[in-house]
Amino acid sequence: MRATVLHSPRDIRLDDVPDPQLALDTDAVVRVVAACICGSDLWPYRGINEVDEPRRIGHEFVAVVEEVGADVSTVRPGDFVIAPFMYSDNTCALCRRGVHTSCVQGGFWGGDDHAGHFVDAGQGERVRVPLADGTLVATPSVPGEDLVPHLLALSDVFPTGHHAAVSAGVTEGSTVAVVGDGAVGLSAVLAAKRLGAATVVAMSRHADRQELARSFGADEIVAERGKEGAAIVREMLDGIGADHVLECVGTGDSMKQALACTRPGGRVGYVGVPHDVQLNVPSMFGRNIGLAGGVAPVRAYLDELLPEVLDGTLRPGAVFDLTLPLDQVADGYRAMDERTAVKTLLTV
Amino acid sequence: MRATVLHSPRDIRLDDVPDPQLALDTDAVVRVVAACICGSDLWPYRGINEVDEPRRIGHEFVAVVEEVGADVSTVRPGDFVIAPFMYSDNTCALCRRGVHTSCVQGGFWGGDDHAGHFVDAGQGERVRVPLADGTLVATPSVPGEDLVPHLLALSDVFPTGHHAAVSAGVTEGSTVAVVGDGAVGLSAVLAAKRLGAATVVAMSRHADRQELARSFGADEIVAERGKEGAAIVREMLDGIGADHVLECVGTGDSMKQALACTRPGGRVGYVGVPHDVQLNVPSMFGRNIGLAGGVAPVRAYLDELLPEVLDGTLRPGAVFDLTLPLDQVADGYRAMDERTAVKTLLTV
Repeated sequence: MRATVLHSPRDIRLDDVPDPQLALDTDAVVRVVAACICGSDLWPYRGINEVDEPRRIGHEFVAVVEEVGADVSTVRPGDFVIAPFMYSDNTCALCRRGVHTSCVQGGFWGGDDHAGHFVDAGQGERVRVPLADGTLVATPSVPGEDLVPHLLALSDVFPTGHHAAVSAGVTEGSTVAVVGDGAVGLSAVLAAKRLGAATVVAMSRHADRQELARSFGADEIVAERGKEGAAIVREMLDGIGADHVLECVGTGDSMKQALACTRPGGRVGYVGVPHDVQLNVPSMFGRNIGLAGGVAPVRAYLDELLPEVLDGTLRPGAVFDLTLPLDQVADGYRAMDERTAVKTLLTV
Repeated sequence: MRATVLHSPRDIRLDDVPDPQLALDTDAVVRVVAACICGSDLWPYRGINEVDEPRRIGHEFVAVVEEVGADVSTVRPGDFVIAPFMYSDNTCALCRRGVHTSCVQGGFWGGDDHAGHFVDAGQGERVRVPLADGTLVATPSVPGEDLVPHLLALSDVFPTGHHAAVSAGVTEGSTVAVVGDGAVGLSAVLAAKRLGAATVVAMSRHADRQELARSFGADEIVAERGKEGAAIVREMLDGIGADHVLECVGTGDSMKQALACTRPGGRVGYVGVPHDVQLNVPSMFGRNIGLAGGVAPVRAYLDELLPEVLDGTLRPGAVFDLTLPLDQVADGYRAMDERTAVKTLLTV
């Protein structure tokens, strides 16, 4: 089969690789219908995260089940499934507490599983899925093509924005500021409105992303960044700042901006993978500002979110503004690297 | 009148000072009935926080109102009142959101108020109370002597333990570990049980404090500290750690211990004033561990806690294991400094 391989920074290709096979009785093999490129894929693509040897890449995909192991009972060949961005057993003590990203048997796509068998990554034609019962969520029937982007958005990007909002404690009637206008930040705007936020301020300098933020429900846009932007947000929100701030970037500057936007007693929900983030603990302490979040336990949220996508009330797939066939995956990375696309969907 | 003055590290005396007077129409002057010494008072007492000139000290007291300004309407001369550890107007945008410690007009005892008038500290015979309507909470009648320690514990120490538990999100049936066996840590044990925690692990090396922790409801005691102690706590709690960890010390080591006791997806509530606390953000992110807390907004909690103290169901005053008259205040500090007392109550 063909799958995406990152050979070295900015050298990404669709290569011929071995066909996946069932290795364990709890496995499934699935045929990918659509995959996408994540902002976090750009870290190794750009060489900021080291790439010492060619590696498979991609962790967001929807698929049709082709084959299942003897112990798999919740999905069958022919089922349309959503794969969360990590695999997990959905039964261990941590999965039961909703932290599937810390599953004792779980792991990332594109590495070896706990038994030492290779697990395919998502940007390819087929994937061996470990712990298929725990990992995959099937739709009641095979969905129409128009639903595919919205279902694909459930594999990572929307639940990650949702995790920021949940971690920050967004409730009915509260005020929210969102730092970051990438696909996750935009998803966080949608998630905050879905949870009932009265006012959502999106911080974005780009006209196209501002427009998408508006369409996702943003009430206000602030183009300024850093201290200047935070001062405007505070002024806008009772002169004190936002109850909840969603940090969707992960740099030291974006975290500072997020903390400066937060009112005393408020909370930052952070989902941007942290790179050189330092926290001013005494200032957070004096102002009673909390911080929660991390890698989104996507699987934990699917049971709640999927029905709303299926009935059309939740349409998170609007973050995809570029659709390409899998064999143009390199163009998809280039577009996101150069910020001409917010997020690329790959049809397989 | 006489009031406690810290002249230089470990030189603390009861001095003659000017009698407080009403300065603003929103003031009250109160006669202190009982005060106490806080663990945080030991920082300047020990010279770890600088003391460049003699300063008044103390921020926990209960009192009887002697005189009120023309604009004061909620307390009257003769009322028995609890003074939270900061004064606040209870009406500003931040007080309305329960963050009285960030009140736009508020401040600490023992400094100047926003109008530039000196505000007495709590370890003395009388205090000018700014913003009396917002700050003071009166009991329905003058309480019996046996209730005084429990009411005094509401001025700071118990609501601070409660704030750790609330900030960490303690709920019915959850598991909790408490780092720190000072008066705040012990109060946090009581607060966690009051909020319905199923299992509370108190981390303490001292037999007398272990006993007090047990009497406050601790289910388990762990005497080990650091990594070793955290490993025992994790093992005790499903092999994964505590849902909620209450950090009641404020050092780098105690915070590390708290984070190591927390299960993935759990939260640390911290109320120990942070001294050299650094956080490992990538590790917190990967394990989805949140952090919330800060200076306890005592005033916000009094309406909920006071009735339970008045009806005898909540008895937080058991943290006082030494009672001295105000003129022996220096002995009270010495006992806490040498850890022969958990917390000293001063009768005035």
